[in-house]
Amino acid sequence: MQNKIHAGHFFEDFKLHEVIHHATPRTITAGDCSLYIALTGARNPLHCSEPLARSLGYPSAPVDDLLAFHIAFGKTVPDISVNAIANLGYADMRFLQPVYVGDTLATSSEVIGLKQNSSGKSGVVWVHSTTVNQHQQPVLSWVRWVMVHKKNQDAPAPDTVIPELPEFVAPELLSVPAHFTMQPTLAAATGGQYWWEDYAVDECMRHPSGLTINESDHTMATHLYQNNARLHFDAHLMKSTPQGQCLVYGGVIMSACKALSYEGLENAIAILAINGGSHANPSYAGDTIYCMTKVLDKWALPHPGLGALRLRMVGVKNIPPATLENIKTAQGYHPHVVLDLDYTVLIPRKGN
Amino acid sequence: MQNKIHAGHFFEDFKLHEVIHHATPRTITAGDCSLYIALTGARNPLHCSEPLARSLGYPSAPVDDLLAFHIAFGKTVPDISVNAIANLGYADMRFLQPVYVGDTLATSSEVIGLKQNSSGKSGVVWVHSTTVNQHQQPVLSWVRWVMVHKKNQDAPAPDTVIPELPEFVAPELLSVPAHFTMQPTLAAATGGQYWWEDYAVDECMRHPSGLTINESDHTMATHLYQNNARLHFDAHLMKSTPQGQCLVYGGVIMSACKALSYEGLENAIAILAINGGSHANPSYAGDTIYCMTKVLDKWALPHPGLGALRLRMVGVKNIPPATLENIKTAQGYHPHVVLDLDYTVLIPRKGN
Amino acid sequence: MQNKIHAGHFFEDFKLHEVIHHATPRTITAGDCSLYIALTGARNPLHCSEPLARSLGYPSAPVDDLLAFHIAFGKTVPDISVNAIANLGYADMRFLQPVYVGDTLATSSEVIGLKQNSSGKSGVVWVHSTTVNQHQQPVLSWVRWVMVHKKNQDAPAPDTVIPELPEFVAPELLSVPAHFTMQPTLAAATGGQYWWEDYAVDECMRHPSGLTINESDHTMATHLYQNNARLHFDAHLMKSTPQGQCLVYGGVIMSACKALSYEGLENAIAILAINGGSHANPSYAGDTIYCMTKVLDKWALPHPGLGALRLRMVGVKNIPPATLENIKTAQGYHPHVVLDLDYTVLIPRKGN
Repeated sequence: MQNKIHAGHFFEDFKLHEVIHHATPRTITAGDCSLYIALTGARNPLHCSEPLARSLGYPSAPVDDLLAFHIAFGKTVPDISVNAIANLGYADMRFLQPVYVGDTLATSSEVIGLKQNSSGKSGVVWVHSTTVNQHQQPVLSWVRWVMVHKKNQDAPAPDTVIPELPEFVAPELLSVPAHFTMQPTLAAATGGQYWWEDYAVDECMRHPSGLTINESDHTMATHLYQNNARLHFDAHLMKSTPQGQCLVYGGVIMSACKALSYEGLENAIAILAINGGSHANPSYAGDTIYCMTKVLDKWALPHPGLGALRLRMVGVKNIPPATLENIKTAQGYHPHVVLDLDYTVLIPRKGN
Repeated sequence: MQNKIHAGHFFEDFKLHEVIHHATPRTITAGDCSLYIALTGARNPLHCSEPLARSLGYPSAPVDDLLAFHIAFGKTVPDISVNAIANLGYADMRFLQPVYVGDTLATSSEVIGLKQNSSGKSGVVWVHSTTVNQHQQPVLSWVRWVMVHKKNQDAPAPDTVIPELPEFVAPELLSVPAHFTMQPTLAAATGGQYWWEDYAVDECMRHPSGLTINESDHTMATHLYQNNARLHFDAHLMKSTPQGQCLVYGGVIMSACKALSYEGLENAIAILAINGGSHANPSYAGDTIYCMTKVLDKWALPHPGLGALRLRMVGVKNIPPATLENIKTAQGYHPHVVLDLDYTVLIPRKGN
Repeated sequence: MQNKIHAGHFFEDFKLHEVIHHATPRTITAGDCSLYIALTGARNPLHCSEPLARSLGYPSAPVDDLLAFHIAFGKTVPDISVNAIANLGYADMRFLQPVYVGDTLATSSEVIGLKQNSSGKSGVVWVHSTTVNQHQQPVLSWVRWVMVHKKNQDAPAPDTVIPELPEFVAPELLSVPAHFTMQPTLAAATGGQYWWEDYAVDECMRHPSGLTINESDHTMATHLYQNNARLHFDAHLMKSTPQGQCLVYGGVIMSACKALSYEGLENAIAILAINGGSHANPSYAGDTIYCMTKVLDKWALPHPGLGALRLRMVGVKNIPPATLENIKTAQGYHPHVVLDLDYTVLIPRKGN
């Protein structure tokens, strides 16, 4: 009798240019959106007001960008990272078009890079993942790389191929909603009074609010995203690890920081790209997350009413960001830093 | 560069008769309704059975009254009470028409009263808030008053204006559903056998069940309502306060008591008014809430099949209500009392 | 004034052949389905992908079988088991047809057996419960028996009637979806590569993952199912019991085990029957649940593309199933065993 447990891919199982179609296509529902608000405190009205979304030219309210991402990403875990030693990074994440309630997301990943470690016991795999909707239209794509165990240490090392990755998604590659029509309804709905012109490169915002992650809410989020990485919800397993407890899924921290950063970035209505990021330190249930944002760059966009801001979002735990002097030193990240994310948002321009 | 963090209104920012339009219009979804059931244990079938609601003359199942209220109220927090020292009270809350899944709620508040405190450091603000649906029809209105810090203590005191507020919403001002058609489906669906005629003024009910509030469920509720008052979900901030932990949002206690009071009030199918109320003592995660109800008054209504009961709902924590002798003494509320609410419900009459 | 609190049925209140119509009809929504995923980690794509469900011949994605069951079951608690000393067992549970979002479920129970205990203080009641949808079509039926207190110990003992119950639902009584059309979309969507032919009688699967039950998620699940048994969410009451804390509703453990058993049973797309089961030991918040499955029997079904597996699903807590030598000894269940369930699933055959 075969062992029927799908053990996921080990390093020697990945072949360059192989395309892996991940299981569990998922239809996004209004229930997912309500839970996302309940789990994060998100207040972006584009995602929770149908009349607002329609007034701006959307057919209906698009789903929160990170909700779509977490669900899309969760599909890849059983194949790509269930045997991972470490999630090393991600890059070139593009939000290609909005996702709506009723859309069904399916994700596939192409192996675009391989490098066996000198130990011969593990290696690094780069995959380019693409999520499509039920019309086979791509809605999200990204690259991530993970270090994975070898199962058979005698398996031969593959040729080393390291993909070239952009430092950030170039402005001309951003997918800007052509339909977007600026309306005064937006300012009334967000309550924000600042627009693309109002933000300056190098400007910093220390978002005032904090959000405590509790055990049930982070595990519910991980389950909602159908991310089956046990270290997030199998406390018995984790008790015998150095951490001693469940790790919070990094996407939960991204969403917490995004929701916290609403105060000061009310009119940043959509994420266009995630250029890269690091989960600098782990988070556990009981941690309170705070967030600060620095403007890295700004670009006008071809659409006359829209601009983009490239932002650095830094999440810290159990210490308000105002008191954290040095995010990163020669010794590495400050132990309270939990997220250092480089991303690009869409924000309307003034005088539309 | 401007500080882009919206700090909310301080006392001197409020001007008499000013109307503040609150951000974050919200479309109510089936997901909100499911979460409300999961977070409260609510069992009123009018809100969870489409066939029942239609049989009674509703176009579809209306949303739980308190769910609509908490979402409507949450909108006001960033402008009205984010700098509040204390939420002093509310009055004259009217449920003007049912809210349905798909409705979008937006709230605005008019300043109707101001009184600077003798210290010169703070003052009391009265606002009259109105929530409308996407057809601009009012669905909810209420008055509340809060004590708010002054930011600039040299700002001149405004003229003192204290609004007159009714002790309770008079029966002739209650919005009774004209479409309502009594059907035997109702008794079968609620399982309750008592109607308007069966309740007597001064009658008391000690509802038997209790409900323990856990950390994740009260913070999820607060987030679902997009109420951004940090004291409910920023545990790191709260650690250095006298309470030492997050406070449960008062609306969570109202909803817990309402759900618990279903046993004995099964046929009280809708809230018509909240006449006033006091969150007598704070609640924290881990507290178990119990509830008792006293009938304060009863009125026949113009609709021949309907009546109203004015009720006092008292919530206590960590002690069943049967053991609490005196809710209120000369020294104030008993330390286990967490809610003392005066409200009015719709209940069918017999013999329809 | 009458006591308006519905105290539920005591032993002497049950009359043979009486039919009890339970309150709270419930329309299933997309919100319930999202919450179910968030609370269990369920990944069966039949329940979360509309295009997959339609490709297989369903009109839309059916609701998870256990979600429908828990909601259907919850209705019976206030009448049948609120005064129960013990839930002794269930049998002959048949999943008669799929439940869809928008369906409204109502449950009634017929008393089919009675036996007073020799003490004269309590007795055992057998009920046959049936859940219908809004078209009055039966979707679920089952038998359960509970031990219930007598209120009046002088009430005469009824004639003893003990119903005959099948050891398992016979294959010819299973409701097989006639519309089912096998498509290659299924294997892609589940990620599973094993079909009816691949499973052998007596084969065992030790599902690798674990799931920790936290306080908020099990109480939210119980509330979502509108199960009002206080011992699951009234921690103050439970503090003075031998357990000292809230008991996790047994259905939560069933759902956890079902979700965990997905790894190895990916193509077991529906539950056809629950033949019997025992909640061998109680579970509490903080327990981590693991699961193993043994194939008890297998049957081809009249539909040429479908087969059935009769499975034994054993849930254990705080110890991976691989380390548990003897589930049951002469002294009874191993103290870590929390569930021993006998159920029958639908699984496509190869070569469709």
